[in-house]
Amino acid sequence: MKLWQKNTDVKKEIEQFTVGRDPEFDMQLAAFDVLGSLAHTRMLEQVGLLEKEDLELLQQEMKAIYHRIVAGDFEIEPGVEDIHSQVELELTRKLGEAGKKIHSGRSRNDQVLVDLKLYLRHELQQLVQEVRALFDVLQDQSERHKDKLLPGYTHLQVAMPSSFGLWFGAYAESLVDDVLLLQAAYKVTDKNPLGSAAGYGSSFPLNRQMTTDLLGFSTMNYNVVYAQMGRGKTERVVSTAIASVAVTLARMAMDLCLYMSQNFAFVRLPDNLTTGSSIMPHKKNPDVFEIMRGKCNKLQALPTEISMLLINLPSGYHRELQLLKESLFPAITELKDCLQMMTFMLPQLEVRDQIMEEEKYKYAFSVDAVNAEVLAGMPFRDAYKVVGERIEAGTFVVPEAVRHSHEGSIGNLCNSEIGSLMNQTIADFNFERANKAISELVK
Amino acid sequence: MKLWQKNTDVKKEIEQFTVGRDPEFDMQLAAFDVLGSLAHTRMLEQVGLLEKEDLELLQQEMKAIYHRIVAGDFEIEPGVEDIHSQVELELTRKLGEAGKKIHSGRSRNDQVLVDLKLYLRHELQQLVQEVRALFDVLQDQSERHKDKLLPGYTHLQVAMPSSFGLWFGAYAESLVDDVLLLQAAYKVTDKNPLGSAAGYGSSFPLNRQMTTDLLGFSTMNYNVVYAQMGRGKTERVVSTAIASVAVTLARMAMDLCLYMSQNFAFVRLPDNLTTGSSIMPHKKNPDVFEIMRGKCNKLQALPTEISMLLINLPSGYHRELQLLKESLFPAITELKDCLQMMTFMLPQLEVRDQIMEEEKYKYAFSVDAVNAEVLAGMPFRDAYKVVGERIEAGTFVVPEAVRHSHEGSIGNLCNSEIGSLMNQTIADFNFERANKAISELVK
Amino acid sequence: MKLWQKNTDVKKEIEQFTVGRDPEFDMQLAAFDVLGSLAHTRMLEQVGLLEKEDLELLQQEMKAIYHRIVAGDFEIEPGVEDIHSQVELELTRKLGEAGKKIHSGRSRNDQVLVDLKLYLRHELQQLVQEVRALFDVLQDQSERHKDKLLPGYTHLQVAMPSSFGLWFGAYAESLVDDVLLLQAAYKVTDKNPLGSAAGYGSSFPLNRQMTTDLLGFSTMNYNVVYAQMGRGKTERVVSTAIASVAVTLARMAMDLCLYMSQNFAFVRLPDNLTTGSSIMPHKKNPDVFEIMRGKCNKLQALPTEISMLLINLPSGYHRELQLLKESLFPAITELKDCLQMMTFMLPQLEVRDQIMEEEKYKYAFSVDAVNAEVLAGMPFRDAYKVVGERIEAGTFVVPEAVRHSHEGSIGNLCNSEIGSLMNQTIADFNFERANKAISELVK
Amino acid sequence: MKLWQKNTDVKKEIEQFTVGRDPEFDMQLAAFDVLGSLAHTRMLEQVGLLEKEDLELLQQEMKAIYHRIVAGDFEIEPGVEDIHSQVELELTRKLGEAGKKIHSGRSRNDQVLVDLKLYLRHELQQLVQEVRALFDVLQDQSERHKDKLLPGYTHLQVAMPSSFGLWFGAYAESLVDDVLLLQAAYKVTDKNPLGSAAGYGSSFPLNRQMTTDLLGFSTMNYNVVYAQMGRGKTERVVSTAIASVAVTLARMAMDLCLYMSQNFAFVRLPDNLTTGSSIMPHKKNPDVFEIMRGKCNKLQALPTEISMLLINLPSGYHRELQLLKESLFPAITELKDCLQMMTFMLPQLEVRDQIMEEEKYKYAFSVDAVNAEVLAGMPFRDAYKVVGERIEAGTFVVPEAVRHSHEGSIGNLCNSEIGSLMNQTIADFNFERANKAISELVK
Repeated sequence: MKLWQKNTDVKKEIEQFTVGRDPEFDMQLAAFDVLGSLAHTRMLEQVGLLEKEDLELLQQEMKAIYHRIVAGDFEIEPGVEDIHSQVELELTRKLGEAGKKIHSGRSRNDQVLVDLKLYLRHELQQLVQEVRALFDVLQDQSERHKDKLLPGYTHLQVAMPSSFGLWFGAYAESLVDDVLLLQAAYKVTDKNPLGSAAGYGSSFPLNRQMTTDLLGFSTMNYNVVYAQMGRGKTERVVSTAIASVAVTLARMAMDLCLYMSQNFAFVRLPDNLTTGSSIMPHKKNPDVFEIMRGKCNKLQALPTEISMLLINLPSGYHRELQLLKESLFPAITELKDCLQMMTFMLPQLEVRDQIMEEEKYKYAFSVDAVNAEVLAGMPFRDAYKVVGERIEAGTFVVPEAVRHSHEGSIGNLCNSEIGSLMNQTIADFNFERANKAISELVK
Repeated sequence: MKLWQKNTDVKKEIEQFTVGRDPEFDMQLAAFDVLGSLAHTRMLEQVGLLEKEDLELLQQEMKAIYHRIVAGDFEIEPGVEDIHSQVELELTRKLGEAGKKIHSGRSRNDQVLVDLKLYLRHELQQLVQEVRALFDVLQDQSERHKDKLLPGYTHLQVAMPSSFGLWFGAYAESLVDDVLLLQAAYKVTDKNPLGSAAGYGSSFPLNRQMTTDLLGFSTMNYNVVYAQMGRGKTERVVSTAIASVAVTLARMAMDLCLYMSQNFAFVRLPDNLTTGSSIMPHKKNPDVFEIMRGKCNKLQALPTEISMLLINLPSGYHRELQLLKESLFPAITELKDCLQMMTFMLPQLEVRDQIMEEEKYKYAFSVDAVNAEVLAGMPFRDAYKVVGERIEAGTFVVPEAVRHSHEGSIGNLCNSEIGSLMNQTIADFNFERANKAISELVK
Repeated sequence: MKLWQKNTDVKKEIEQFTVGRDPEFDMQLAAFDVLGSLAHTRMLEQVGLLEKEDLELLQQEMKAIYHRIVAGDFEIEPGVEDIHSQVELELTRKLGEAGKKIHSGRSRNDQVLVDLKLYLRHELQQLVQEVRALFDVLQDQSERHKDKLLPGYTHLQVAMPSSFGLWFGAYAESLVDDVLLLQAAYKVTDKNPLGSAAGYGSSFPLNRQMTTDLLGFSTMNYNVVYAQMGRGKTERVVSTAIASVAVTLARMAMDLCLYMSQNFAFVRLPDNLTTGSSIMPHKKNPDVFEIMRGKCNKLQALPTEISMLLINLPSGYHRELQLLKESLFPAITELKDCLQMMTFMLPQLEVRDQIMEEEKYKYAFSVDAVNAEVLAGMPFRDAYKVVGERIEAGTFVVPEAVRHSHEGSIGNLCNSEIGSLMNQTIADFNFERANKAISELVK
Repeated sequence: MKLWQKNTDVKKEIEQFTVGRDPEFDMQLAAFDVLGSLAHTRMLEQVGLLEKEDLELLQQEMKAIYHRIVAGDFEIEPGVEDIHSQVELELTRKLGEAGKKIHSGRSRNDQVLVDLKLYLRHELQQLVQEVRALFDVLQDQSERHKDKLLPGYTHLQVAMPSSFGLWFGAYAESLVDDVLLLQAAYKVTDKNPLGSAAGYGSSFPLNRQMTTDLLGFSTMNYNVVYAQMGRGKTERVVSTAIASVAVTLARMAMDLCLYMSQNFAFVRLPDNLTTGSSIMPHKKNPDVFEIMRGKCNKLQALPTEISMLLINLPSGYHRELQLLKESLFPAITELKDCLQMMTFMLPQLEVRDQIMEEEKYKYAFSVDAVNAEVLAGMPFRDAYKVVGERIEAGTFVVPEAVRHSHEGSIGNLCNSEIGSLMNQTIADFNFERANKAISELVK
């Protein structure tokens, strides 16, 4: 059955090809679209392009629609092109001509731009919260298991003693740096493009500062040509931050898959969190961590996909920018799922004790032995030689206790300092401004 | 000629394969390696692992080496493995045993980590300065050509009037957001990994806060396992920021290649900045912008390359991390070259005037005509219809002047506000802390 | 609403996370899963692991299921894990114990491997047919418009005369080379992995040559460890071929978007195939080609995504290999849609005539003028100078006709030779072997 | 020191920016450039554009240059722009005016196109030979170690018995499929673009079939616009094949790094092929395999880099296509180095025996035990239960011998069949045609 064998109504297939899965993503923008219109209409009235009574009616109806969307009681009707049209349609049904006035002084281009900015700003805040929840779990685990040693590897060769305190704590600190990328994405996102119209501005006397304030943006994308360039650029920056968090999760998942192998056996999961085999009764597979690793490694291709969509497009809007949604939106959901799953799994991980007592990890303590002699007064070269001879003679004895005391070492994890870094980094987002403005707007 | 047909001294080929081009990149780290050692030795003395008189000799000699490196009077001798060894060798030649003591309490892993952090911190500062220089040129050009209109396109179709003021200004504002990514990279970079040794810390009583302060880092990578994870992560974040600037340059270059085509003819270059053809005397090719576009599009693959090197490496050091240098270092140079070249080229660009008088751009003014009627009191639908009829009847007259007055539009570019955004963003880096610490250290 | 706040039936969320969208892709494998089982059971009977009467019952029922799947009358019931289980369930309902016997001597690993190979082999054949259809249209258009000239560009600068005969024909020839990549993918795919079990073979005396023949594979993946490595590798190779076709489509789409711009105006589409603007009545946007360009540029990221999923996975099965389906399957559908859409659109494209008469393309003929003098006996350097002087003096006259006669030039397109290349390349696939075997199997 | 602070001779910096590292890559094309000219001039004479005596002189001189290049006795002089100019310069010095005639009827565009095709065709042949050498070593090792078992993993969990025979043999068979991609690349490459001039053909009566035959191409890129499109497309296809081989090497390297870890200890290297640590005397690191893994994982980013350079370039030559050389040429060298190094290392690998006797691998034999009961007559479900009970009761006994006999299993590796696949695949390249033509041409 070929697409084009019928000879009527060709337009329909073209529409299907160009519209694609867009309506399903538009639904995710619905609430934000209404927020944009709430601010836009208040501005229109202020600059004299909308009557006061029309404004009041519109505000009332749009707030009602907003609350229906939040409650899950809203949909795009079949045959309606996009979220903007659906909202306009509902307003017109209720208010007649007044409903059509919300589109004055803007085009779909800046309308979808502001929807995206509001949506992504909201999602970035959610992501930061999910990252924070995982961070807390990691820090808890780090403290809880701080006395359990495991071998530290370089070149995948046994090198020196490490600890679960260090291992969990390292991934917590990794998230602090990931949040810095989420913050850069947030800052790029938190600028108002509304008023840029089709990317070249308008001859209407719009007040862009007013919508900027009403929507709680930190500032605006001033230049209207640049505001339009934000389409694609914003998505790319957000994808970059997503990839950064994904790298941390994927690496932790890889460690865990390795550590659950019989060849390491450092950790195990309760049976009800593993998957068995229909053939081999002994199998307890770490499928969750494998799928996590896979999902998070795939997320690292997201910036590439977005770049490839954008490369060498001359300035100005192009229709394929719409396809950015179907790359980015599911990726955000995917990352949130992964963060929640990791946050759920880690507290259930059983950590093996006494790992370092195995013979094969013995020489991991050789450097500590050398250092102990040095601290006791022996020159380094002599100490190195003496310990080396003990190893060869088979008389090497593992030191009784690992005494690492400097900042960030086994005996001094500095989890509280790392917690402060995270607190400060999150405080720098200043989520309050946006949240306060939005709750004012829909009140 | 096969690599392995000889049967002696196999080790040599192995070394060649594993070392590769590393020494050439190590030279770029030389000055930073010495800085790290200057701080490290002062700390060693403070915690009692180095004698005061040894410290003084070492500081004096290392400062001398530092100044020789800066002056270009330093090299890695043949047969010496890396920059760390070369410095140690020179110190030992001069000072004997004392020269060997600089390596106590650290391993090559944290030594190269701190070298990289210092190097990248320095390069990021340079990049911000180059971006700033281009930004200034773009803002100048925007002001200079603010009255020259050109057609604005959507879907590559003539849409509405734009201006060179907008076009240049848009790329300036784009750089403001790119600097936000450079800033995230800077924040990730500006943390001290020294003291993490081979990634598992040390049993020596190191004072990591002291080296953090001496080297002017904002804070440290506390957890030693995370400090080691910073290898790769730092490079990835920096590559992401590089790619972001590259996107802006590449897109501007694409626009310029198009605008120089006879089919647009919006801008031209003086003949001495174009390239001719040996066959066609009329050819004046925009090779500079094509090469710029190519280089900057290739730079967008850098994060992919770095990700591919890192994916699924379990935690802990692996030898291939060394290969990050040969991906990242030349990319930094490439981007600086591109920034400088764009900064040089733009002031020489000749911008055509009166473009909009061409017949084919006439209807770009239709929206303005409609809006003019609306502002004069006619309802939008009527205005739209009236203008539509004029177009069909061939009586459509282009409005005398484009009057766009809102923030960021043709008549109100807000370049000064955009300049303030850039100033504030750069101020937030606080480059002074690092610069001051470094100049103290080598004094 | 957090995923993990309830404290019962945790297993369910884990399953949801690990299974994800897999069932929807499994449906695309259904018919091929039955084909694999039809061959596998015949082999089991031949080596004595299945009774003859059981075989007959199973064959009959499985053929019935196969035809129901083809007719669209089949689904995976809620609660049933995957396609393999659904088929087994239906067989067991009908045949009791005999239904369970189809799983002897294989594991899900080689079962899904053979499903994928059969599915991809089938899809590659479909893709070749779609490519062929587009090829034919391109060759038709090339012949139809062979006398219409357009400027040829280098550096986006007007260079020499080209023609629509050349332009359409070039993309046809590009598809010939793309088919070579589809062929490599087909050859890698067309090898039987069945019998490799979980990737380490079986202690049952399987006859793998027999299933190879029954399923019409050209040969088998002999080594069972390699057969398992085929998971991922096959998908990567197929993605590479998909990307190659996508590059051709994307580039053609970019040319078309440019050529439809008012600045070129080389081609146009009938109004019912373009999209308008709610604001600007003059807009006729080439949305189809923009969406095509976007989709096909995104497809070029597919090999990257697949590589990132696979990098540094040690040998042996890992659960995330399942995620390959959700990358690859939709990409195949996407590419088929794009091929069909391009095949539909091109015949409706209106090609402008007399383009070269515009003044700005005049000097595109300068090389022809020089060559004409050379062929008339003047030395090249003199001819070059003479023509150059005419250009400067404003006396340059465009030659009356373009006479390019060598192979592949404007006057000698060689479309028939290119057609022969395509015919030969497609014949080399030998689709008949597979098709014949499959129709035998389900008879 | 800024690039543009001086105010003289600006052109020079522009040249440096646009030319970049091109001359160093041009040297790799030198021999092939002369081959192209040898064929081109013979054709020019045949169609009457070159005198017979000029041809003879030119052929003699160019053959001399060719042999000097092969002998390493040739260079591009400072100030000479590229390889084409250098050859022309030397000819003109010797032969005067005749030397300049080699450029008639072609442009640099098709000259460099044919150089690249000849160069890549040559390199692909080299790569196939290197792959073949590694293949032979892998098959040798597979046979040599066929009785040594190791655990087979799924989900990184011990699953079933495998063998070094299987492990080495799997990578051999992987190379067979990689060669299929090299073959697709070869077929795309092995087509003659010469005569396409600047991408739009020529008004000279060129005989393109003649140069096709003289250069031993299988056919030509007929359509001249498509011939020009081959720039970029050819490189992309070759990069794809390179990546495919790299995947096989990287995965083998990852396995080896894991297997050399103390936690597996399946293989070891002689000390002189490992790298030690300055701190830990027990360290023997597998640096060669880590660097191999890193280089080969980076090579997988090559197709992305090339795609990013090419995306959305309209048809026709663009200057940045030159940058393809600096991506592709070093990658070819890198892959050859890796292939040679792997070929060298593998025979020196020491494979541990008796691995499966370790307690932790015991249950890998559970499926074999179940199957043994089944083959002895017990129904599968009963057998599964019986073995399961033995495992729980601690009475499970490992079967005396692994008896896997089907094609491609432990006991029946089918290395000879795999060898035949490789032989046939290589024979299909028909390297002889090209080799014969080239040796005729320079005789």
